[in-house]
Amino acid sequence: MKQALVVGATGFGGLGLIEILTRHPHIAIKQLVARRDAGRPISEVFPHLKGVCDLMVDPAEEMKTDGIDIAFLSTPDRVGMSLAGTLIDQGIAVIDFSGDFRFRSEEEYAAYARNRGLDEHHTSPHLLKEAVYGLPEKNADSIRRARLVGNPGCFAICMILGILPAVSEGICATDTIICVGTTGVSGAGKNSGEANLYPQRHENVNTYREGTHQHTVEVENILSQAAGRSLKVLFVPQIVPLNRGILIVSYLDIVSGMDTPKVLELYRRFYSASPFVMIVDRSPGTAEVRGSNRCLVRPLVDARTGKCIVVSVIDNLMKGQAGNAVQNANIILSFPETAGLEHTPFYP
Amino acid sequence: MKQALVVGATGFGGLGLIEILTRHPHIAIKQLVARRDAGRPISEVFPHLKGVCDLMVDPAEEMKTDGIDIAFLSTPDRVGMSLAGTLIDQGIAVIDFSGDFRFRSEEEYAAYARNRGLDEHHTSPHLLKEAVYGLPEKNADSIRRARLVGNPGCFAICMILGILPAVSEGICATDTIICVGTTGVSGAGKNSGEANLYPQRHENVNTYREGTHQHTVEVENILSQAAGRSLKVLFVPQIVPLNRGILIVSYLDIVSGMDTPKVLELYRRFYSASPFVMIVDRSPGTAEVRGSNRCLVRPLVDARTGKCIVVSVIDNLMKGQAGNAVQNANIILSFPETAGLEHTPFYP
Amino acid sequence: MKQALVVGATGFGGLGLIEILTRHPHIAIKQLVARRDAGRPISEVFPHLKGVCDLMVDPAEEMKTDGIDIAFLSTPDRVGMSLAGTLIDQGIAVIDFSGDFRFRSEEEYAAYARNRGLDEHHTSPHLLKEAVYGLPEKNADSIRRARLVGNPGCFAICMILGILPAVSEGICATDTIICVGTTGVSGAGKNSGEANLYPQRHENVNTYREGTHQHTVEVENILSQAAGRSLKVLFVPQIVPLNRGILIVSYLDIVSGMDTPKVLELYRRFYSASPFVMIVDRSPGTAEVRGSNRCLVRPLVDARTGKCIVVSVIDNLMKGQAGNAVQNANIILSFPETAGLEHTPFYP
Amino acid sequence: MKQALVVGATGFGGLGLIEILTRHPHIAIKQLVARRDAGRPISEVFPHLKGVCDLMVDPAEEMKTDGIDIAFLSTPDRVGMSLAGTLIDQGIAVIDFSGDFRFRSEEEYAAYARNRGLDEHHTSPHLLKEAVYGLPEKNADSIRRARLVGNPGCFAICMILGILPAVSEGICATDTIICVGTTGVSGAGKNSGEANLYPQRHENVNTYREGTHQHTVEVENILSQAAGRSLKVLFVPQIVPLNRGILIVSYLDIVSGMDTPKVLELYRRFYSASPFVMIVDRSPGTAEVRGSNRCLVRPLVDARTGKCIVVSVIDNLMKGQAGNAVQNANIILSFPETAGLEHTPFYP
Repeated sequence: MKQALVVGATGFGGLGLIEILTRHPHIAIKQLVARRDAGRPISEVFPHLKGVCDLMVDPAEEMKTDGIDIAFLSTPDRVGMSLAGTLIDQGIAVIDFSGDFRFRSEEEYAAYARNRGLDEHHTSPHLLKEAVYGLPEKNADSIRRARLVGNPGCFAICMILGILPAVSEGICATDTIICVGTTGVSGAGKNSGEANLYPQRHENVNTYREGTHQHTVEVENILSQAAGRSLKVLFVPQIVPLNRGILIVSYLDIVSGMDTPKVLELYRRFYSASPFVMIVDRSPGTAEVRGSNRCLVRPLVDARTGKCIVVSVIDNLMKGQAGNAVQNANIILSFPETAGLEHTPFYP
Repeated sequence: MKQALVVGATGFGGLGLIEILTRHPHIAIKQLVARRDAGRPISEVFPHLKGVCDLMVDPAEEMKTDGIDIAFLSTPDRVGMSLAGTLIDQGIAVIDFSGDFRFRSEEEYAAYARNRGLDEHHTSPHLLKEAVYGLPEKNADSIRRARLVGNPGCFAICMILGILPAVSEGICATDTIICVGTTGVSGAGKNSGEANLYPQRHENVNTYREGTHQHTVEVENILSQAAGRSLKVLFVPQIVPLNRGILIVSYLDIVSGMDTPKVLELYRRFYSASPFVMIVDRSPGTAEVRGSNRCLVRPLVDARTGKCIVVSVIDNLMKGQAGNAVQNANIILSFPETAGLEHTPFYP
Repeated sequence: MKQALVVGATGFGGLGLIEILTRHPHIAIKQLVARRDAGRPISEVFPHLKGVCDLMVDPAEEMKTDGIDIAFLSTPDRVGMSLAGTLIDQGIAVIDFSGDFRFRSEEEYAAYARNRGLDEHHTSPHLLKEAVYGLPEKNADSIRRARLVGNPGCFAICMILGILPAVSEGICATDTIICVGTTGVSGAGKNSGEANLYPQRHENVNTYREGTHQHTVEVENILSQAAGRSLKVLFVPQIVPLNRGILIVSYLDIVSGMDTPKVLELYRRFYSASPFVMIVDRSPGTAEVRGSNRCLVRPLVDARTGKCIVVSVIDNLMKGQAGNAVQNANIILSFPETAGLEHTPFYP
Repeated sequence: MKQALVVGATGFGGLGLIEILTRHPHIAIKQLVARRDAGRPISEVFPHLKGVCDLMVDPAEEMKTDGIDIAFLSTPDRVGMSLAGTLIDQGIAVIDFSGDFRFRSEEEYAAYARNRGLDEHHTSPHLLKEAVYGLPEKNADSIRRARLVGNPGCFAICMILGILPAVSEGICATDTIICVGTTGVSGAGKNSGEANLYPQRHENVNTYREGTHQHTVEVENILSQAAGRSLKVLFVPQIVPLNRGILIVSYLDIVSGMDTPKVLELYRRFYSASPFVMIVDRSPGTAEVRGSNRCLVRPLVDARTGKCIVVSVIDNLMKGQAGNAVQNANIILSFPETAGLEHTPFYP
């Protein structure tokens, strides 16, 4: 068994890792670290973990790296950039959940940080070059050799998986892709503040950060790389009364000669080696992926307008966060990509 | 008091009318008619109406038109086209909730009927010419003189109100407008079938009829009229776990020289005489309009892509249905447009 | 128009008052006061109030009592006891929403305060004697003459209205009444803390303070008074994923000779002069009272066990809080009890 | 691997079995049978099963018993009584999900059938004697030797597990136990009819069958057996807007000398060999058991009234149905009781 360190264990990201790794055939949790709730057993913080994982949550000062093979940093922005260097120097692979290592240059990081309202100055710029963007469906080879992986944003994963085949295969005929994203409330995290109190979210739908969501930067980077030209994404997120789930509707102009069957075929071929992406020819719902690491993608061509519509869905806490992180870990540690991740979607 | 006949009284459309008209200062309900639940008091069908409205529901055969000033037909498609002629011949103004009278020509109706899976043949084509599309924010003058009004579809109202100023004022630089619509489950009606059982809708979001929703036809008609040129709308609806509410995100290319303040100003001017439309400079949510006849619209310009994003929200059972119908009735009957419709939004 | 002062205007209690009083035929709001959000228009704090009420929220230091007829103190425990004296000395009737004036003696207050984890020492004990427990269905005569009313707890109102006829009319044959209460999340208030974040409450039901809820004290007082003997109530509350609504199931032993029709008859007679209480012979749901000041009560006798089951439902923010407070105000100010309170329940 | 036949595969009971058995180490599904949706792959009926289980659903006429070790009859009342005899005669163990085999005598069955509105005549009365009530926490020894098991009702399991230690150990001092049960909507089944459409259940709580719920009969039987005297249960169920979960609050008089620590200790000892029952000293919520086979029980003594309150929670589709059925199957087939059932509760 490989040994894992989970930093930021008491948020939803940490919880997702604990739930997956306690059932993982090849990776075990050695230590849980968190600032919040340090000194309590994790099964007191999350009572449903009683008997599943009863480890203590240790404070950051007591973090131990001996015998650790992989560290998951489920920490806020700008924590990973101060921790990752020391860890990889000790031979520990690092998977960071924040925006700290999703970019290749200080400029890109600064663009992200601006959108997010963060200090634009990256404190470990030398690490940006070696960090790999942790999207296995695109970067599996680099991830395999990586010491440091930036786990993508939840909206970003769902957008990219929906659009990537079209731009990679050259059937996207537009420079600006339009996306509307719908997310459940858990995407805002476990301690997400007054705006997410039950009466404020129940029976309410609202958009936010229209056109300026921070995940846009990484989506544009990855899609532009894949397209070999500069692409823009105009993204509007909205939040709905749902615990888990992301659904993205994307629109792009399609090159002439394509119809729905051809696009379906192209998408299926593109993802033929990706065990978690399923191309479907019906309207997918978040209830079909909840609790699983799956991403369902439905591309269809609207002949009347010459546009391609793509609907993609994921569970934001699984393929959108902890599930994808463990998938990256499996690749780094040379386990089957699906090890520990074959959850049946939870329904109803 | 003017006297109203409500046909289709036991669905959500009928319920909305009853709730509004029992508090209306100038219109009273004279008879409730429905096929379903005929012979029972309406307050047994909807127990919360006890003491508010205890009228009996009469079967269609017992419909009486004596002394009726206005008839609301909250009936399925193809019922209104068989009833409306006789009613208006007796001098009764008719407001129909279905697609029967939303179109000016048999061809347009046929396009709608195809999308909807209905018989494409309109049985009262002579009435199509005089029927007015019941959007007071655009057609108040024609509605004032009308005998027959086709009350718009719920998605259509919300889309049109969001986009109308841009196309009317010539700042829309594109031929295809993109819209994503999010609706609560009540939009499917009171007896909406197994797909809308609680466990199927709770914790689920899914799209449906991507690019082919029947409301698209009327939206394209109205926007093309307003623009003076042919416009297309590519609309994807989705359903979320919410009782009431519609939120539309629309995208259009904007003519150069426009920014958010200018568009806000243009929108405010456009709707300056429309008491129910509020232009806002923040992200609106459906919880702000629930239970009211309001429509909130937020236009903003994304300088980076040269596109205008418009977010619009309504309560699908109020401005999207019964509230808008009573607004039409107020105009026809020469009452203040807001009579009986000044509900404070219901929150939380 | 009588003039009202609303203190604590930015919580759900204050919001309820604003929503009712802006439509009230005889009472107008003169000033809104709150610590939180002072200096902002109330329609910025609650955007759905835009155009309904745009008054500024003033800080406590700027409270003005000139021309005020009635003050609503929708404030936390132990605020009212420091404000009420000065107000009533100026001839202003006071209705307090906290536990400060629900009790007749310092001892009773102390018992309440202990359950609630508050300082047990009442700072205005001389006011306890004249304060009236604001349950119009029991104390209308005293309320009519009162200067100071303690508005009951939301659970307390629903429990008392369910059980009061049985104990008053001597058909309750037991000393300990058992109650289970179910509440929506708004009962915890607008800024109710992390335990009420959406993901923690959605898809969850849990009990709390089993047998020790603070409302128990006032229920036992009122029922014992009515019964003329000491009664105990063993109450277990639970919270469910719902915005608004309280449902109480109560059990008591019934004297012999009673059956369901007799109990229904007795309950109907008991509440014949109470416009908001409806006795029903079917299972009531919270959806039937939402947004209204109604209380539905269903008593039934289980012959097999000799027990009477009573189910009672209210909207916790209306009959459970602001609606009941305005009902008290109507009585004090000699308006019809139902003035401004005839809301149709909001459904669906 | 033992081979299972699942009859009634397309309801929630069947779905639960499929989800568990596709991950079970020792039991595999050989055939799925159902009347509804026969002829389609199960992963078309439940699209989230794609890749998890793609078996066809066969019609009843094509049911094959060759090589079957165990049959799960997740069928409506009165189906099992016509199927079970033939199956057990072929050496196949049978676990029935309906009320057909929960009773020892024709009289008891008739009492159940009356409450349920069914034909009171049992068509296979000779099987009632050998059928075992499938509650492993009480009847493990009989289940081990059984050919035919009646899987308990979901409310019944949760009530019995909460009360059983008290009545078995002689600390219950009353003849009538009072229970209020709260259930999510999935308890009504997958095709549960109009009363369970989303808008009717969302934002609503209501009681039903107060004092006459059909599960009462089996609870009284089992508790009376355990107590060695006749006990009555007065049960009121209510339905809340939740997909999964049951919470029961029970009240009983306690013998003198007991306090909460003693009762906790007694309960812990009683269930020391029951892997799925956890005794807790805090308020349990349904979110702690969702998706798992766990039952959490919190007993506490209210010294003021001399009563014991017990709160118990389960997932109605797991410990309340399919999970408990597989637990019975494990015992019959001599596998560890927890095989295939160690799901981490699904949260959030």
